[in-house]
Amino acid sequence: MTTADALALDAQDVLAPFRAEFAIDDPSLIYLDGNSLGRMPLRAASLLMQAAEAQWGSRLVRAWGEEWIHKPRQLGDKIAKLIGAEPGEVLVADSTSVNFYKLVATALEAKPGRTKIVTDDLNFPSDLYILQGLVRTLGGKHEISRVASPDGLTPGDIASQLDSTAALLTLSHTAFKSGYVHDMAELTAAAHAAGAFVLWDLSHSVGAMPLDVKAANADFAVGCTYKYLNGGPGAPAFLYVRKNLQEKLTSPICGWFGQDQPFDLALDYRSAPGINRFMAGTPPMLSMIAIEAGVDLLLEAGMDRIRAKSVAQTGFLISLWETHLAPLGVTLNSPRDASLRGSHVSLGHAEALRIDQALIEEMNVIPDFRYPDNIRFGVAPLYTSFVEIEEAVMRFRRVLDEGIHLKYSVEKPTVT
Amino acid sequence: MTTADALALDAQDVLAPFRAEFAIDDPSLIYLDGNSLGRMPLRAASLLMQAAEAQWGSRLVRAWGEEWIHKPRQLGDKIAKLIGAEPGEVLVADSTSVNFYKLVATALEAKPGRTKIVTDDLNFPSDLYILQGLVRTLGGKHEISRVASPDGLTPGDIASQLDSTAALLTLSHTAFKSGYVHDMAELTAAAHAAGAFVLWDLSHSVGAMPLDVKAANADFAVGCTYKYLNGGPGAPAFLYVRKNLQEKLTSPICGWFGQDQPFDLALDYRSAPGINRFMAGTPPMLSMIAIEAGVDLLLEAGMDRIRAKSVAQTGFLISLWETHLAPLGVTLNSPRDASLRGSHVSLGHAEALRIDQALIEEMNVIPDFRYPDNIRFGVAPLYTSFVEIEEAVMRFRRVLDEGIHLKYSVEKPTVT
Repeated sequence: MTTADALALDAQDVLAPFRAEFAIDDPSLIYLDGNSLGRMPLRAASLLMQAAEAQWGSRLVRAWGEEWIHKPRQLGDKIAKLIGAEPGEVLVADSTSVNFYKLVATALEAKPGRTKIVTDDLNFPSDLYILQGLVRTLGGKHEISRVASPDGLTPGDIASQLDSTAALLTLSHTAFKSGYVHDMAELTAAAHAAGAFVLWDLSHSVGAMPLDVKAANADFAVGCTYKYLNGGPGAPAFLYVRKNLQEKLTSPICGWFGQDQPFDLALDYRSAPGINRFMAGTPPMLSMIAIEAGVDLLLEAGMDRIRAKSVAQTGFLISLWETHLAPLGVTLNSPRDASLRGSHVSLGHAEALRIDQALIEEMNVIPDFRYPDNIRFGVAPLYTSFVEIEEAVMRFRRVLDEGIHLKYSVEKPTVT
Repeated sequence: MTTADALALDAQDVLAPFRAEFAIDDPSLIYLDGNSLGRMPLRAASLLMQAAEAQWGSRLVRAWGEEWIHKPRQLGDKIAKLIGAEPGEVLVADSTSVNFYKLVATALEAKPGRTKIVTDDLNFPSDLYILQGLVRTLGGKHEISRVASPDGLTPGDIASQLDSTAALLTLSHTAFKSGYVHDMAELTAAAHAAGAFVLWDLSHSVGAMPLDVKAANADFAVGCTYKYLNGGPGAPAFLYVRKNLQEKLTSPICGWFGQDQPFDLALDYRSAPGINRFMAGTPPMLSMIAIEAGVDLLLEAGMDRIRAKSVAQTGFLISLWETHLAPLGVTLNSPRDASLRGSHVSLGHAEALRIDQALIEEMNVIPDFRYPDNIRFGVAPLYTSFVEIEEAVMRFRRVLDEGIHLKYSVEKPTVT
């Protein structure tokens, strides 16, 4: 596999023109952290300026009625197309953590006789933290069954935990560290067979692969908009609630945006009909408006074509790893089977933190470090090229060959 | 009182130069809804463009470590100066409703033997909704004692509700409808004497008057940044927790930004030290960055000068009301005593909704309508002029004189 091979793959790539839709001011920078913070679509900057100057600056409070009040639903309906949901099943609001809190609390309230929450240790820790905090707030009557992964890469035996005490199964659909992808339909069916609800965290899946919550009959989902959706730093997250559940449930965080008639300002809360009841307070509109650009690009590109390119690119990366990095002691910490793999590849090395720093500081490659020894290479098919992947592996190899990483030692923060 | 009087007052106004700091593309528009959505500081648009292009677009995920990770605390420390708090006591994150939820839940958890939450019906309904939802989620063991206002303008007997069963007193410091201002020090002392915590919602006070949570020894506070702070539509809100309480409490919403070492991604939650434990998920950074511009302008202007101008302007408005509007059946629904009044004046009329629409659609005046019969004129001393106030009252009078409002009838939404 040579640079010529990579160039040939880029030449055949039907999605290659989408790269020009993104702000790329340093073409030599190889950015493989789109699974942490996606690149900025040029249209997002335009939307943002328009929101500031034409809306906030000029229309002032009138922009709420004209534009803004509809955004959480309007963006939700677009994201619904990415995850196989119907219009009116998805909402953009708050952070992933707050949305996750709302949906776990509402799920537990609707299963009053059941006390077990089933999850696994491939789940993103922030979701585990939310579960722990909520269990405490609810008085300690629930227990969290966290199924251990045998190898940190693939899941343990989740199905055996789904018994008549289980209220909720909740998992990260794609594991943040290994990139392992759970079988949504199979696990949802297993949970339903036990009488439990399912809540999927789609943060590392949405925008990277086609999803079908409807076919899986999923109850709840949350997901992040700042990774493969390219929605901007900390952009508000989405939540999904299956339509025939919505009227039976009430959010624990009953803010005025989830009230039936928010502008009547009645003193007693009455849930809005439909998905709107899962809104809480006033949404952060400037951050919200920027999301639409990235979602539109994904809809234009088509999730099937994105997944095909993602599988080709992560596969290409794995063959390059095998040739150039495995002999140097770098391990593959992601599934080899493409059907079990999301859009990032985890590579392990005892010196991963120092290698990560060397790649960033000296090699102009930005991957992502995950404690204690994982380097994640995230592929974002809308803007990642095959040449970038080939070049990133070569620069990784050079770091090890020349011992460039050995001069680094200090811990530094990275952000998912 | 004539236009000449108003011009003379503007000529003497030391804060008049601050008007040039705001985006004002239609000088004939009289905007008196800054208590709902403050005008856009020109510097906010610059900060936003810089955040998009130089940070998100160019520095990508590196901007988290360089700039963004510090924003919730850095902005919190600036807002602390506006409310009399110390550095490390204020944080910007989430919405007012979500912050209110977090602090009520943590307060109730810390008073396990007590079941009563005391509030009043001058409080902003969204806060009441949050209380109702939380009481349900906690299993119904708490009761909300909502003290009725005798006249919709001034509070009822709150102190008599503060007994040994009271866990928490929570009030809007400035009432959203009448503009009545509670005595923070006196009510905080009364709650403490009964052994209860106090949580102040400062949304309609902050940026409009000096506040001193330290002198009052307040336990908790939340507040909005998109009203008098001019932080932008739905901008993230702030929360305050008194320093010597922080280590004793844990947020109910335990997201990774409130974790001690978020980037270690340990599987078990441990609260961050200090105020950071009240963070939840990743904050909406573009909306957050815009906040700083408005806060800086308030700090430059000085809250004492802002309050002095606010008192003069709301007093000026009330004298104009007395001369021109009272004879036409418009009532004053705010306190006449300036020491009991925030920075907006509520005017009542049976036809208030239609008058509001006529003012907006035909008179180029934007006030704010509050169900069922209140028009709020909000004064924002950084950009409101005396001439605007005089002219707004004249246009209001003309609507009634000529019956311009009679052609309007349809309900329309407005947003606080």
